[in-house]
Amino acid sequence: MNDANRLHENGPVNWQLAQIVEDLRGARNEWRSRTGRHPEQGGRELPSRQSIEEVVERLASALFPMRLGPNDLREESEDFFVGHTLDAALNALLVQARLELRYSARQRGDVVDSRIDEHAVVLVRDFARALPEMRKLLDADVLAAYQGDPAARSVDEVLLCYPGVVAIIHHRLAHHLYNAGLPLLARIISELAHSATGIDIHPGAQIGSSFFIDHGTGVVIGETAIIGRQVRIYQAVTLGAKRFTSDETGQLHKGEPRHPIVEDEVVIYAGATILGRVTIGKGSTIGGNVWLTRSVPPGSQVSQASLQHDESRCGKN
Amino acid sequence: MNDANRLHENGPVNWQLAQIVEDLRGARNEWRSRTGRHPEQGGRELPSRQSIEEVVERLASALFPMRLGPNDLREESEDFFVGHTLDAALNALLVQARLELRYSARQRGDVVDSRIDEHAVVLVRDFARALPEMRKLLDADVLAAYQGDPAARSVDEVLLCYPGVVAIIHHRLAHHLYNAGLPLLARIISELAHSATGIDIHPGAQIGSSFFIDHGTGVVIGETAIIGRQVRIYQAVTLGAKRFTSDETGQLHKGEPRHPIVEDEVVIYAGATILGRVTIGKGSTIGGNVWLTRSVPPGSQVSQASLQHDESRCGKN
Amino acid sequence: MNDANRLHENGPVNWQLAQIVEDLRGARNEWRSRTGRHPEQGGRELPSRQSIEEVVERLASALFPMRLGPNDLREESEDFFVGHTLDAALNALLVQARLELRYSARQRGDVVDSRIDEHAVVLVRDFARALPEMRKLLDADVLAAYQGDPAARSVDEVLLCYPGVVAIIHHRLAHHLYNAGLPLLARIISELAHSATGIDIHPGAQIGSSFFIDHGTGVVIGETAIIGRQVRIYQAVTLGAKRFTSDETGQLHKGEPRHPIVEDEVVIYAGATILGRVTIGKGSTIGGNVWLTRSVPPGSQVSQASLQHDESRCGKN
Amino acid sequence: MNDANRLHENGPVNWQLAQIVEDLRGARNEWRSRTGRHPEQGGRELPSRQSIEEVVERLASALFPMRLGPNDLREESEDFFVGHTLDAALNALLVQARLELRYSARQRGDVVDSRIDEHAVVLVRDFARALPEMRKLLDADVLAAYQGDPAARSVDEVLLCYPGVVAIIHHRLAHHLYNAGLPLLARIISELAHSATGIDIHPGAQIGSSFFIDHGTGVVIGETAIIGRQVRIYQAVTLGAKRFTSDETGQLHKGEPRHPIVEDEVVIYAGATILGRVTIGKGSTIGGNVWLTRSVPPGSQVSQASLQHDESRCGKN
Amino acid sequence: MNDANRLHENGPVNWQLAQIVEDLRGARNEWRSRTGRHPEQGGRELPSRQSIEEVVERLASALFPMRLGPNDLREESEDFFVGHTLDAALNALLVQARLELRYSARQRGDVVDSRIDEHAVVLVRDFARALPEMRKLLDADVLAAYQGDPAARSVDEVLLCYPGVVAIIHHRLAHHLYNAGLPLLARIISELAHSATGIDIHPGAQIGSSFFIDHGTGVVIGETAIIGRQVRIYQAVTLGAKRFTSDETGQLHKGEPRHPIVEDEVVIYAGATILGRVTIGKGSTIGGNVWLTRSVPPGSQVSQASLQHDESRCGKN
Amino acid sequence: MNDANRLHENGPVNWQLAQIVEDLRGARNEWRSRTGRHPEQGGRELPSRQSIEEVVERLASALFPMRLGPNDLREESEDFFVGHTLDAALNALLVQARLELRYSARQRGDVVDSRIDEHAVVLVRDFARALPEMRKLLDADVLAAYQGDPAARSVDEVLLCYPGVVAIIHHRLAHHLYNAGLPLLARIISELAHSATGIDIHPGAQIGSSFFIDHGTGVVIGETAIIGRQVRIYQAVTLGAKRFTSDETGQLHKGEPRHPIVEDEVVIYAGATILGRVTIGKGSTIGGNVWLTRSVPPGSQVSQASLQHDESRCGKN
Repeated sequence: MNDANRLHENGPVNWQLAQIVEDLRGARNEWRSRTGRHPEQGGRELPSRQSIEEVVERLASALFPMRLGPNDLREESEDFFVGHTLDAALNALLVQARLELRYSARQRGDVVDSRIDEHAVVLVRDFARALPEMRKLLDADVLAAYQGDPAARSVDEVLLCYPGVVAIIHHRLAHHLYNAGLPLLARIISELAHSATGIDIHPGAQIGSSFFIDHGTGVVIGETAIIGRQVRIYQAVTLGAKRFTSDETGQLHKGEPRHPIVEDEVVIYAGATILGRVTIGKGSTIGGNVWLTRSVPPGSQVSQASLQHDESRCGKN
Repeated sequence: MNDANRLHENGPVNWQLAQIVEDLRGARNEWRSRTGRHPEQGGRELPSRQSIEEVVERLASALFPMRLGPNDLREESEDFFVGHTLDAALNALLVQARLELRYSARQRGDVVDSRIDEHAVVLVRDFARALPEMRKLLDADVLAAYQGDPAARSVDEVLLCYPGVVAIIHHRLAHHLYNAGLPLLARIISELAHSATGIDIHPGAQIGSSFFIDHGTGVVIGETAIIGRQVRIYQAVTLGAKRFTSDETGQLHKGEPRHPIVEDEVVIYAGATILGRVTIGKGSTIGGNVWLTRSVPPGSQVSQASLQHDESRCGKN
Repeated sequence: MNDANRLHENGPVNWQLAQIVEDLRGARNEWRSRTGRHPEQGGRELPSRQSIEEVVERLASALFPMRLGPNDLREESEDFFVGHTLDAALNALLVQARLELRYSARQRGDVVDSRIDEHAVVLVRDFARALPEMRKLLDADVLAAYQGDPAARSVDEVLLCYPGVVAIIHHRLAHHLYNAGLPLLARIISELAHSATGIDIHPGAQIGSSFFIDHGTGVVIGETAIIGRQVRIYQAVTLGAKRFTSDETGQLHKGEPRHPIVEDEVVIYAGATILGRVTIGKGSTIGGNVWLTRSVPPGSQVSQASLQHDESRCGKN
Repeated sequence: MNDANRLHENGPVNWQLAQIVEDLRGARNEWRSRTGRHPEQGGRELPSRQSIEEVVERLASALFPMRLGPNDLREESEDFFVGHTLDAALNALLVQARLELRYSARQRGDVVDSRIDEHAVVLVRDFARALPEMRKLLDADVLAAYQGDPAARSVDEVLLCYPGVVAIIHHRLAHHLYNAGLPLLARIISELAHSATGIDIHPGAQIGSSFFIDHGTGVVIGETAIIGRQVRIYQAVTLGAKRFTSDETGQLHKGEPRHPIVEDEVVIYAGATILGRVTIGKGSTIGGNVWLTRSVPPGSQVSQASLQHDESRCGKN
Repeated sequence: MNDANRLHENGPVNWQLAQIVEDLRGARNEWRSRTGRHPEQGGRELPSRQSIEEVVERLASALFPMRLGPNDLREESEDFFVGHTLDAALNALLVQARLELRYSARQRGDVVDSRIDEHAVVLVRDFARALPEMRKLLDADVLAAYQGDPAARSVDEVLLCYPGVVAIIHHRLAHHLYNAGLPLLARIISELAHSATGIDIHPGAQIGSSFFIDHGTGVVIGETAIIGRQVRIYQAVTLGAKRFTSDETGQLHKGEPRHPIVEDEVVIYAGATILGRVTIGKGSTIGGNVWLTRSVPPGSQVSQASLQHDESRCGKN
Repeated sequence: MNDANRLHENGPVNWQLAQIVEDLRGARNEWRSRTGRHPEQGGRELPSRQSIEEVVERLASALFPMRLGPNDLREESEDFFVGHTLDAALNALLVQARLELRYSARQRGDVVDSRIDEHAVVLVRDFARALPEMRKLLDADVLAAYQGDPAARSVDEVLLCYPGVVAIIHHRLAHHLYNAGLPLLARIISELAHSATGIDIHPGAQIGSSFFIDHGTGVVIGETAIIGRQVRIYQAVTLGAKRFTSDETGQLHKGEPRHPIVEDEVVIYAGATILGRVTIGKGSTIGGNVWLTRSVPPGSQVSQASLQHDESRCGKN
C-alpha cells in the first residue's frame, strides 16, 4: 500500500529518519557506557522469547500427544509424533541454552569457548531425560484439579481448559531449567505462563505433587517458596516476601529463604496473602482475603474473622 | 539451521530419543490404565482450542463487520462478508461440536453413530439462528459500557478497546453453547476470554442485558451465578461459592446453586468478594474490597466501613 | 476438509444463511438508527488493533534492537535495521493516525478533507522525533526495575522478561499519542499491554522516570493519576477514582482530576487501593492491601495495622 | 539463529555493509541519471507482482467457486463467497490500477491528480461488469479442451489440471485490462501464466471462443495475433513476428500488425512456427514442426513433407 | 488499508456487486444446465491442488529425509521424522482419495456410500506399502542421472537440483495412483511437476528403472508410452500420438495404445519428436530435432542427416 | 480434521506405519552402502533450496529497491532498507555457503574444521563486494531488453515482467558463486530461475554485458558457453554440447570446453540449436530452427534455407 506516499501531491512523506536513527544510536551508546558495555562487543546474543514459546508448545504436545497434539493423531502414529516433536524441541532448546550460557559467561567476564556449547548439550540432555517424570507429575496435577473442582467434568477438560494446568506445565519445565543453571530461559517460560494465565510462579519455587490452582488470575508465588503435596490454591493468592520490613534493613540478600513454606494438603482461598518465611502447617485451611505474616500449626483454620478475633484479643491486652 | 549438529566436531548431538520416547509411552500407558482408558481406543477426538479461537474471531467479525471486520469493508459488501464469514465459522464450529458430542458419548459409554453428527448440525443451526439476538444483547452491553464509564469517548472505542466487552462477547456465545449441551466448547471459549482479559466468567453464569465490567482483571463469576439487568462490576470482583464451609460437609453436588444472585441495577466495586447463594437486592451498591457472605436487601449501600460497624456492633452484643 | 458436507448422505448441511444475514442486517440497522448513524455513511474507518500491535512490536524492536530485534543483528547492521524498521512502523502508524483523525472528525460532524491527512503526518513526525527521549526514559525504567528487584540478575533479563517493562514501554508510547490527540490509538496500545500483562494503565496517566511495577497482575492506574520519579508499585495496586461517592452526585465530568498524585520515591505494596485526588507524599510507603482515600504527608509508613489503629482511635473519639 | 556471529571467536562477522550500501546507491544514481530520473522524485509507485497474483487467484475462485473456491463451499454459501471474494479482489485491483495510471502519467510527464484515481475506479468497475461474460467465454474454452483431448475424463478435470486452461483464464483477464489501458497489469498477469505453464500469450492477442492449448510448454503468441473460434494448438507452437527480415529495415513500429491471423477451426500441431502477418485459412491443419511464413487458404493441410515437396518444386523452377 | 474508500471525498467506491454476483450466478446456472448438473446437487467435492501439493512435498521428504527433510535432522531422529511425516501425508492423501472416488461415483451415477470411503483406505494403504519400492526405483533414477551427466558432481546435487529428478519423483507417485484408479489425483501430481519443470509426463506412461531426463523443458510423454530401462532423454523431446492422421478417422478411442515404445538403453536427444505406436529398438540413439513416425530396429543411430538421406533415396525411387 | 479416524465406526485407520518406516530405513541403508556412505555419519548437511530462494529474493530487492522492494519505500528509507535486507541475505547466504563447503570437504574426505567456516565468510564477503558491479551489469541487461523488444514500453516494465530478466539476475548471482567455488549453491539458484522461466542457463556459462533473452521458454545454455556483449536470443535456443558424436568416443571430460562461443552483437532466433565448441562470429544472425554444428564467420546470416542450400551443394559435390 503506497498510502504513506500518497498523502501530499507535492511529494512523499519525509520522517527525517537519518536524524532519528542517529539520536537513537546516541541513546544506545549512552546506555551502553552507563551499563559498562563496549559498543564493539558485537552481536546480539540473548535467548528469544518467541523461540522459547515454540519450544514449550512442542514439549507440551509431545508430553500430551493425544490431547495437545495434532488432531489426526492415532495410537499408531503417536510415538513417531512424540519422537519427531521432541527432537525439534530439543534442538531448538539447545540453541537457546547456548545463548544463555554464553550470555552469562560474558556477564561474568568468562571466556566463551566450545566447552560452553558442550555444557549446553549436557543440560538439554538431562532435561530430556527428565521429561517422563515430569509427565507423571503433571498427570497427578491434572487429577488433583479434576478432583478439586466439582465443576470439572473430565480430566481431559481440565487439561484442555484450566489455566492452572497451563501454569503448572510451564512451571515444571521452567523449574528444571532453573535448577540446571538456565535461570533466564526458566524465567521466560514462567512469564509466558504469567501472560497467558495471570498466574506468576517464580521458576525457583519448589512445588510438590498434585498441585492445583483454580481460576488463578493474580496468583504470585515467590522464588524461595516451598509447597508440599496435595496443595490447592485459588485466585489472587500471594506467597510473597515481607518486603515491607525488609526494606528498612537495606537490600535483601538474593537467594535467602524469604517466602512461605506450605505443607502438604493445605488449601488457600482466594485473595489470601502470606508473606515471609513462615510455615503453614499440614492440612491447614487459609480463608479468603486473609493477611498472614506468621506461621500456623498443622490443621489450622484461618479466616478473616478468626484473625480479627485474635487481633482484637491482642488489642485488648 | 544445522546448529545442533555443529556442536561437536566428533559427530552430531544424540538425545537418546528412543529411550525417552519409550519412557513417555510408559507414562502414557500408566495414565491410561489409571484413568480406565484402553490404549487401543484409537484416535484423538477432542475439540481444538485453536480452531475454536478462529471460530470466535470469525463470529465476532460477522457480528460487528464494520468494526471488527476487514478494513476495506463497505456497506455494499457487508452482507457478502457476513454471509461468507458466518458460513466458514459455522462449518468449523460443526466440526468442533461433533468432536465434543462424540467425546462425551464415549465418556458415557454410548454408541458413537451418525445420529450424533445429525445432532451436532441441529445444535449449530440453532446457535446460528440465535446470533441476531446475541448481537442485540451485545449492542446493549456496549451502550452500558459507554454510559457507565465517563472516560469512554464513543461506542466504537468501547467495542474496539474494552476488555469487558471482549469478555461479554465470548460469554454470550459460550453461554448459548453451554445451554445447548456443549459445555466443553463453551468452557474453551470462556478460557480464551480469561486469558485475553483476566476476566473469568463460567459459561454457565446467567447474565442479563446491559452488563458492564470495567478494567476487569481478576473478576471471577461462578457457574450458577445469576446477574440481572444493568449490572456494573469492577476489577477483581468475585461472585463465588462459599467453598470454605462446604468443604467440611464433603464434596459439593455439581450444578447445585452455589453462587450469588445479583439483581438489576447493582454496582459492585473493585475487589469485592460475594460468596454463596446470597442475593444482592435491586439497585444496591457494594463497595470496594467488601467481603460479603449474606444477602442484602434492595437499595443497600455496603462498604467496608459499614460492615465493620455492623460487625463491631455484633461483636459488642 | 469437506467435513461439513459429508454429514448427511441426503445432501449437504444448510444453515439458512440468507435469513440469518438478513436478521443481522436488521440488528445493525437498528443499532445504527439508535446511535444516530446513517447506513449510507460508507466504509469502515476505524483503526485496526492488529495493525497497531504490529506497529508497537516494530517500535519496540527499533528502540531496543540488540535485545528485542532479530537474532542475527550485529553492531554493523544495527542502524540499517533501526532505520528500516522505524520507517515501516511510522508508515503504518500514519495510516492508523489518519483513520482516527477522520473518525473523530466525522464524530464531531467536521469536514473530512486533506488537511486531516496533513495533520496526521505532523503528529506522526513529532512522535518519531520523540522516540530517542522515550528510549532514555525507558532505560531508566529498566534500571529501576533491576535495582528494585533483588531477584533480577541483569538489566537484559529485566527487559526480556518483566511484564512491568512491557507495560511501561506501551505506556510511554501511548501517552505520547494520547497527548498528541490520538486517544483511540493510545487506548488500543494500553489495552494490548493490559491483555499481555494484566497491568491496566490509562494512557492519560502521567508517570515520572525510573518507574517500576513488579509482578503487576491487577494493577489499575487511572487517567488523571500523576506519578513522580522513582516510584515502585506491586501487583493488584489500584490508583483509582472514588466513584462510590461520586455516583451520588451524578455523572463525573470527563477529564476532571479524580485519581491520586503519587510523589517521588513512593513504594506501594501489593493489593493497596488508593482512591480519589489524594496525594501520597514523597518517600512514603503504602503497605499491602491498604485501603486509602485520603492524602498522607511525605515520609508516611501506612499499613493495615496503622490504619486500623487510626480508625479505632477515631472510633473511640 | 546466531550462526553468523558464532563463526569467529574473536568477534562477529563484518560485511562492510556501509561501503556496499554506498556503492549500490552510486549505481542507482548512475542508472537514474542515465534514464533521466530525478532521485528526488520520491516513492516507489509501481504495481506489485505479488498483489496481482493474489487478485488473479481471487478472481479465479470467484469465477469458478465450486471448483477453485474453498473446499467447504456449498450452494447456500456460494453467492456470499463470490460477493466477498470479488470485493476483496476489486479493491486490491483498484490499488494496482491506480499505481499503473500514476506511473504512466509520470512517464508521460502528465500531472498526477485525483482524476487519475477516479479513472482507475471507472476502469475497475468496467472490468467487474465484464466478468460474467468472461466466465461464459471460459466455460466454452473448458468445453473445447474437454472435447479436444481424448484423454480428458471430465470438464472438472480439465479445469483443475490443464495448463492451457490456466493460461486462457489469465489471458482473458489480462486482455480486458490491456484494452482498458492498463498494459502493465495485463503483462504481469500474462507472465504469471507464462511462469506457471510455459505458455506465453501476449495480453494484446485477440483470441476467439472455444480456444484450447494442449500441453502448452513453449507456446508463444504475439501481441497482434488474431485467433478465431474453435482453434486448437499444441506445445511449442509460435505465432510470431518475422523479425529476421524486419531487422534489416530498422526498428519495428510498435503496434503495427506483425503476427499471424488464424481463422476459425484451425488446428496447429506441436512445434509449428508461423511468422509474420499471414493468414491461416479456416479449417486448416498445420502439422508438427512446420515452419510457415506465408498465408495458406482455408482447408489447407500443411505438413513438413508437403512443404519440402513445394520447395523442391520451387527449387526446380 | 482503507485505500478503496478514500478515493472519493463524496463517498466510498461502489462496485455494484449485487448485480455482478447475480450475473455470475446466471452464468453458473447456464453452465450447469448445459453440462447436466443440478444446481441443488450440493457441495464442492473435488480434490484440492494445494492439498495434493503438500502431500507430495511430505512424501518426498519422507522418502529422502536426509536430503529433502528438515535441516536439523540426524540419524537418531530419522525414523521418527519419517513416521510422523508419512502419517500426516497419508491422512491427507486419504481425504483427497475419498474426494476423487466420490466425485467419480457421482459422475457415473453410482451411489455414494461408506464403501467408497473404505475403498479409499485400501487404496492409500496399498500406496503406502509401495513407497519403499518407489524409493529404490528413484535411487536408481538418481544414479542414472549422476552417471548420465558429466557435469553432475554428486548424487546429492542431482537430487537437490535436477528438474528431471523432480519430474520422475512426481511421476512414480502419480503412476501408482493412476493404476490404482485415482487418475485425477495422479494428473494433478503430474501437472505440479509440469508447472515446476516444464516436463509433461502423463501419469499413465510406463517408465522403467534408471530413467533420466536432462534439462527437460518441453518434454512431453504420452499416456500409453512404454519406456524401458536405462533410457535417457533431453529437453523438448516428444513421445506423442500421431494425431494428425488419427483426426481423419474420427475420435481416438481412449486408452488405445497410441504412443511410442522405447526399449532399454535408448538415448533421445533434444527436440526429437517420435509419434505413434512405433518401437525404438534397444540401444538406439535418436539425434536432436529428429522427426520420427516409424519404428527403428535395435542399435539404430538416427539423425536428421540420416533421415534426409533416406528420404532423398526414397525420393529418387 | 479428524477425517482419517472417522472412516470406520469400528476404529481408526491403521497404515501399518511401523513396517513401512522399517522398509524405508532398509532402502536408505541399501542406498548408503551402495554409495559408500556410513549410516553413522550423522546429520543432514546440505544447502536448502528454500533458504537459497529467500536469499535470492532479498538480494534482488536490495539490488532494485524501488522496483522489487516493498511498496512503501521512499528515497529517504532506501539505504536503510538496502542495508538491512543485504545483511539478512548475507547472513543467510553464509549459513548455506558453510553447508556446501562442509559437504564438499566431506565428499573429498577432508577434515571439517573451523577454517572452512572462515573460508565461507571470505567467499560471502567477496560476493557482497561484487554486488554493486552486478547491479551495473544488470542495468545494462535491462536496457538491452528494453531496446531489443519493440513491445517494451518502459525499462520498469522490463524489470517487473520479463522472464529473461529474471533469468539473468539469477545467472549473474549464480555465476559469481560458481567461480567462487560454491557450485552447488550456484546450481540451485540457476534451477530456481529455470523453474520460474523455463530458461536453463548453467551457472558456469560466461555471459557478456547487455544480454537479452526474449520469451525464453526452452532456452538451454551449457556450462562452458561463452557469450559476448549485446547478444540477443529467443525462446527454445540451445547452446549445447555435441553429445551425439561424443558418446562414441566415451565419457566427456568434465570442464573441457564443449559449448559454443557466441561473439558480440549476435542475434539467435527461436528454436535454433548450436552444438559443440563452435564460434558464431561477431554480428552474425542465426535464423529460427537452424541446426548448426560448425563455426560461422563474423557477419554471417544463417537461415534454414541457406543451410539446405549449402547442404544440397555439398551433396552435389
